[in-house]
Amino acid sequence: MRTCLITVGDELLSGRTVNTNASYIGNRLAETGAPVARTVVVGDRVDEIAGAVRRESADHNVLVVTGGLGPTHDDVTLDGLALAVSLPLTESADVLAAIEVRYRKLDRLVPAGVRRMARIPRGATVLPNHWGTAPGLHLKLEHCHLFVLPGVPREMRGLLDESVLPIVKSLPGLKPVHVRSLLTAGVTESALSETINDLIPPAGSPVRLAFLPGYHGVELRLTTQGTPAEADRLASAIAERIGPALIDPASSDDLMTAVGRLLRERGAHLATAESCTGGLLGKLLTDRAGSSDFYLGGVIAYANSSKANLLEVPQQTLDDHGAVSPETAEAMATGALARFGADYALSITGIAGPGGGTPAKPVGLIYMGLAWAGGATHRRLQLTSDREQNRERSAYAAFDMLRRHLQEIPAK
Amino acid sequence: MRTCLITVGDELLSGRTVNTNASYIGNRLAETGAPVARTVVVGDRVDEIAGAVRRESADHNVLVVTGGLGPTHDDVTLDGLALAVSLPLTESADVLAAIEVRYRKLDRLVPAGVRRMARIPRGATVLPNHWGTAPGLHLKLEHCHLFVLPGVPREMRGLLDESVLPIVKSLPGLKPVHVRSLLTAGVTESALSETINDLIPPAGSPVRLAFLPGYHGVELRLTTQGTPAEADRLASAIAERIGPALIDPASSDDLMTAVGRLLRERGAHLATAESCTGGLLGKLLTDRAGSSDFYLGGVIAYANSSKANLLEVPQQTLDDHGAVSPETAEAMATGALARFGADYALSITGIAGPGGGTPAKPVGLIYMGLAWAGGATHRRLQLTSDREQNRERSAYAAFDMLRRHLQEIPAK
Repeated sequence: MRTCLITVGDELLSGRTVNTNASYIGNRLAETGAPVARTVVVGDRVDEIAGAVRRESADHNVLVVTGGLGPTHDDVTLDGLALAVSLPLTESADVLAAIEVRYRKLDRLVPAGVRRMARIPRGATVLPNHWGTAPGLHLKLEHCHLFVLPGVPREMRGLLDESVLPIVKSLPGLKPVHVRSLLTAGVTESALSETINDLIPPAGSPVRLAFLPGYHGVELRLTTQGTPAEADRLASAIAERIGPALIDPASSDDLMTAVGRLLRERGAHLATAESCTGGLLGKLLTDRAGSSDFYLGGVIAYANSSKANLLEVPQQTLDDHGAVSPETAEAMATGALARFGADYALSITGIAGPGGGTPAKPVGLIYMGLAWAGGATHRRLQLTSDREQNRERSAYAAFDMLRRHLQEIPAK
Repeated sequence: MRTCLITVGDELLSGRTVNTNASYIGNRLAETGAPVARTVVVGDRVDEIAGAVRRESADHNVLVVTGGLGPTHDDVTLDGLALAVSLPLTESADVLAAIEVRYRKLDRLVPAGVRRMARIPRGATVLPNHWGTAPGLHLKLEHCHLFVLPGVPREMRGLLDESVLPIVKSLPGLKPVHVRSLLTAGVTESALSETINDLIPPAGSPVRLAFLPGYHGVELRLTTQGTPAEADRLASAIAERIGPALIDPASSDDLMTAVGRLLRERGAHLATAESCTGGLLGKLLTDRAGSSDFYLGGVIAYANSSKANLLEVPQQTLDDHGAVSPETAEAMATGALARFGADYALSITGIAGPGGGTPAKPVGLIYMGLAWAGGATHRRLQLTSDREQNRERSAYAAFDMLRRHLQEIPAK
């Protein structure tokens, strides 16, 4: 089974648009057991599209083409396709009617070129698009299943998941892939790798283990084309070994979902106090709807004066220990706890860089504080010189400190 | 002149990594006048790489290959290249020495496979890598300039800008491209397009005009392969027409840079008060180093109680008008102004969605407040149902409100 992806669009070649469609499709097809072996990006030109479709459909069993199905004169994917497979395009009254209904539903004018979108190559199956206007197409060539999808990410994703993957999964010769993800936080890739070194399957094993690090933590992804039991056994062994670094043994919740759930289950409310992250803690907490269940708000105490004025960090603490110190981190958290009447408060103070470091307090030195009724604690991080990385990493490290603390406390 | 890009890596095909290298390279080559006509992504396999290099070097005058130059057994781009062009690889003592020095400088162990990285095809020119270990290569084939670059983005970018683009620019038959960007804020793409409709160059004109919308505003990008004067004339006409929507007639500063500059020039300090954006205003202000020159901090007043407690929004205002109202927006800004002792304060309150809307106050309704010593004002936005978009757009709209206000006030 060989799979190819062709993405169409001048904006992809000129770099105006990053090809996130290719990574979404690559991910989903890999999980389905038909991993993409080759991706080609071509511009909005009939001859380029036709050439790529002709060549890749001869070399592959599954070919997915995305983009260029809209109503403007630049949208020529159907023309290229028709040329490549030598099948005439004919307008479908049903498809045209469905597209016009959709435009009206979206309260948008039916564009002049709408008829272009309703042209179907003879023999193609229409894949209905519930997320937008241009439908998808499925064409069974001699040795190749050809799928054509719109380039708008939301529409492409809907069609891929609903219509394309079920067909691909049903193809003979496909070995289904089982995927298990273990999401961890608060441990580096190299520390994790040392901890589970003897559990890592050697090359050629039926189960493959990938370390996928991100700012929020490291994902351990197990894939196998063997029986799921093999991956599950390895997952259990890893889970036992790494203990609390695993965000949630019972689910594949990510860190922010787990923090929200832990707070909700305990009926607890959180406040934040930030210096170097400048609002990032609050932003990450409120990225998803529903955070008002557990998040009260926070103080961004960027200037030192605001640490004293708004968070009641004692001037003495700032004078004696400095703004970047364990004492200030804990005082900031305690101050936010009182100010907001919260059950928990998280704080961050540090030197995000690239400037502002000293030999005693270098760039990348971060203190995180956690306060609750009757107590406070802190953690220290020494990160690198990259400002964005330092801010993201320390924010997630603070949330991980809270997660580990909450997991020790029984839910209500 | 036809240009092709081949990016090598299993992680690109499986979707684990988004191909940002392709968009960077596409952008830079388009500006240079050698736009990418085709991009191919292949996995870490000698035969796939060799096949792609052989085919694309026959069809193109410039071929850039990135990725797969590291020390591990997966890094086989050099092997694929050697097979494609039938040139043997020989180890270069100079290159090996330079790589080893670089590893030591980075305080990293010299890996076992380091010698693999020092293999050079006969006749190739070495392009020194000041940003990492594996060097780039330049190979002059009969009709094609072939460049090989590492896949690590920082290293690829350094090598592309320093070594590849100057060579491409010097190729005969290349018409240099002039690019001018007009960055706007606070106006939608369709409103802008109506305003300057009669100025838009028709198809076939020497100057092309592209509308590139983003959360922060719309970039108007003018490109020409004719004389720069033609693009400059059009830019001036557009600038005059759109007036204050242009962020800065004298520079190509983006919105956040302009806000920082305007505050600095006036010796003024800013505070923020956020509800639905939950810290995003502060985060955007502090994304870049140096913001402590003009940003004091802010209050994230996510719960209503914190609007009253921390920002002294009168309970009566909240009761009479609600948390999402012009009155509350102005009171939040005025409260932050006082709390932080700032010269200006920005506030945002709204219904980011997807839940929480009512017929009178639907999802996407946002009020932004601006306060200064002796005054306050507000603006209303009605956005869509998408939470992320509503948060980003309203944050930038607030900064644009401040920008326009500050531009009316003389600098110190």
